[in-house]
Amino acid sequence: MREVAIIGAGTTKFGELWESSFRDIAVEAGIRAIEDAGISGEDIEALYGGNMSAGRFIEQEHIGALIADYSGLAGLHIPATRTEAACASGALALHLAVISVASGWYDLVIAAGVEKMTDVESDVAEDLLASSVDRKWEAIYGATLPSLFAQMARTHMEKYRTTKEQMAKVAVKNHANAVHNPYAQYQRGITIANVLASPLVADPLHVLDCSSIADGAAAVVLCAAEKAKKYTDSPVYVKASAQASDTLSLHDRRDITTMDATVFAAKKAYQMASLEPSQIDLAEVHDSYTIAEIIAIEDLGFFDKGEGGRATEEGETEIGGRIPINPSGGLKACGHPLGATGIRQAVEITQQLRGEAGKRQVPNAKVGLTHNIGGTGGTAIVHILSR
Amino acid sequence: MREVAIIGAGTTKFGELWESSFRDIAVEAGIRAIEDAGISGEDIEALYGGNMSAGRFIEQEHIGALIADYSGLAGLHIPATRTEAACASGALALHLAVISVASGWYDLVIAAGVEKMTDVESDVAEDLLASSVDRKWEAIYGATLPSLFAQMARTHMEKYRTTKEQMAKVAVKNHANAVHNPYAQYQRGITIANVLASPLVADPLHVLDCSSIADGAAAVVLCAAEKAKKYTDSPVYVKASAQASDTLSLHDRRDITTMDATVFAAKKAYQMASLEPSQIDLAEVHDSYTIAEIIAIEDLGFFDKGEGGRATEEGETEIGGRIPINPSGGLKACGHPLGATGIRQAVEITQQLRGEAGKRQVPNAKVGLTHNIGGTGGTAIVHILSR
Repeated sequence: MREVAIIGAGTTKFGELWESSFRDIAVEAGIRAIEDAGISGEDIEALYGGNMSAGRFIEQEHIGALIADYSGLAGLHIPATRTEAACASGALALHLAVISVASGWYDLVIAAGVEKMTDVESDVAEDLLASSVDRKWEAIYGATLPSLFAQMARTHMEKYRTTKEQMAKVAVKNHANAVHNPYAQYQRGITIANVLASPLVADPLHVLDCSSIADGAAAVVLCAAEKAKKYTDSPVYVKASAQASDTLSLHDRRDITTMDATVFAAKKAYQMASLEPSQIDLAEVHDSYTIAEIIAIEDLGFFDKGEGGRATEEGETEIGGRIPINPSGGLKACGHPLGATGIRQAVEITQQLRGEAGKRQVPNAKVGLTHNIGGTGGTAIVHILSR
Repeated sequence: MREVAIIGAGTTKFGELWESSFRDIAVEAGIRAIEDAGISGEDIEALYGGNMSAGRFIEQEHIGALIADYSGLAGLHIPATRTEAACASGALALHLAVISVASGWYDLVIAAGVEKMTDVESDVAEDLLASSVDRKWEAIYGATLPSLFAQMARTHMEKYRTTKEQMAKVAVKNHANAVHNPYAQYQRGITIANVLASPLVADPLHVLDCSSIADGAAAVVLCAAEKAKKYTDSPVYVKASAQASDTLSLHDRRDITTMDATVFAAKKAYQMASLEPSQIDLAEVHDSYTIAEIIAIEDLGFFDKGEGGRATEEGETEIGGRIPINPSGGLKACGHPLGATGIRQAVEITQQLRGEAGKRQVPNAKVGLTHNIGGTGGTAIVHILSR
């Protein structure tokens, strides 16, 4: 199989985009990625689009063809695929796009993620999120995503002495990073005291422990690595792309302080890339809740199990720390438009590896990792990118 | 790239499956395919599942991981992908599964399609179907799938002298075939008079011109062709797998008596297989409405444009005719559980090429084609299979 490169990357502003429709933001992200790659729409051989909520929120399915259509590509009749793995729908689109180019099936494709979430009432959005976990054995009894992550947090606290302050520090760090990210929903700093004073959503998680519902879209253009230099002087190479699954229900897991889907996907990704966790310079991980980041940095092998909270508290995951986590601001401060997130993570790593991340630049970033999960970890997808 | 083979195939009964849940039928189809392949669940390296309606009908997304979980595969943590391209969600799962094996990414995978549609009111189902077309420019003004296909039918009638009797003949033929298909929803014959006497849904389409909402699931096991003989004496080879898109809206098309997505996907498929339409022995095509079969057999190159109605009338598409179309009974008589249909078509062709189709067997079937579309043709996916 061939090596694959990212040659273009773009994202819309994330947030409450009242003046833009689902179609508008999908097209906007696509155009930014295409312009960044310096290609024409006619160069695109296939489109992969990650989305979770359109069926319920805008009563529209058939999203792959829709995006191709509204991007003006319908006349080319390119294959257009919609992928869904709950909150990991975006990384799934990227993963399938990578396979399609690595295999030689296509030479140049676009992978996008898009979600328009703020036009519905928040209870409708919460219920949509609950369709990412087991409706029959969890959601129907009232379990929502925050309550399930709260169970993970409580167990992690009991088992590893993780504290609410350590979890709050995840949010504080990510907000501090997002101050320098013009595409983030929240470009403002917060303090640990702010987090702990914010309303409890599901004990021990406060509002500021939770990522937010948002609108947004992001896109990357991929091509065969051997052809990447035709388009750009700074291609970013996909060294690994790995996906794994787990039970949807938390109660079926062997241990709710770890996500085996992450462990398996990461293991496979490190094997593909022939790299160790210690060789990763920075990572965008799935901090849908602050506890999720702590669990992720352990499961990804950056820290020993149970050490995620302490490492966060001691600044090891800050820009300038041992391994900067979520320099973009993460889901917490960028906002989390489900299907867009996995692609936005790849956009961030691409910009970081190119040295284009401005004031949030991780110095000397050579190898970056993205980690995107669905629900409470029923799906995990890990990519390793290098310059 | 490597050649890919189907080594196992299975389907549930299609119809109103009151006693089975979405999860039940997904698992049932998977087990049948796995048993047919003579493999163990542990041999499966990845799962692709096509589904359109679960988000709205059973309030459950994250379908890929859900199916893996309920199939007892969660402990293997295999990649589990849900695909959606409206009514073509099943063939899309198959297409991605083929790419994943052809590329060498995996050696053995399962592609499934599942839909549970009869537990909701029919207006809810109709509205879900309308999310396959352009919600903003078609459905919101009251256009439903039958009304859009009625426009295609009316135009085809005016342009090519196609008659209501010729369309009715599609339904009559497909019902006659389904009499011998134990998995079909309607195992009974009908007459042209029955079709014309049935209530008008959208002039000129009567109820019996329309395929039905149904529950059902189907699955196929794919492996690298070079390893297929390890598992079976009668592998079925995937000679081509091609996908194309078009505008979602009918009014944006150059001609509504043809589907350019079908034309493009078919052209690509014939190129991949190095075959001409005349070399295809039988086909399962997307007869969501009788007019859709007439348009499909023209667009697939089996008959000249405008000749589909006449050819049907003269029996050229019957078993024993020049090119048998929908020997299974098609969507019309098997029922059309959206995401399951594209996989069920592959199951039928597999059984036909193995000579296992019983009283509906097409004599001496060597090469078969499947054709699955989304909505009114915003997506089309064509596979060519051979023994």
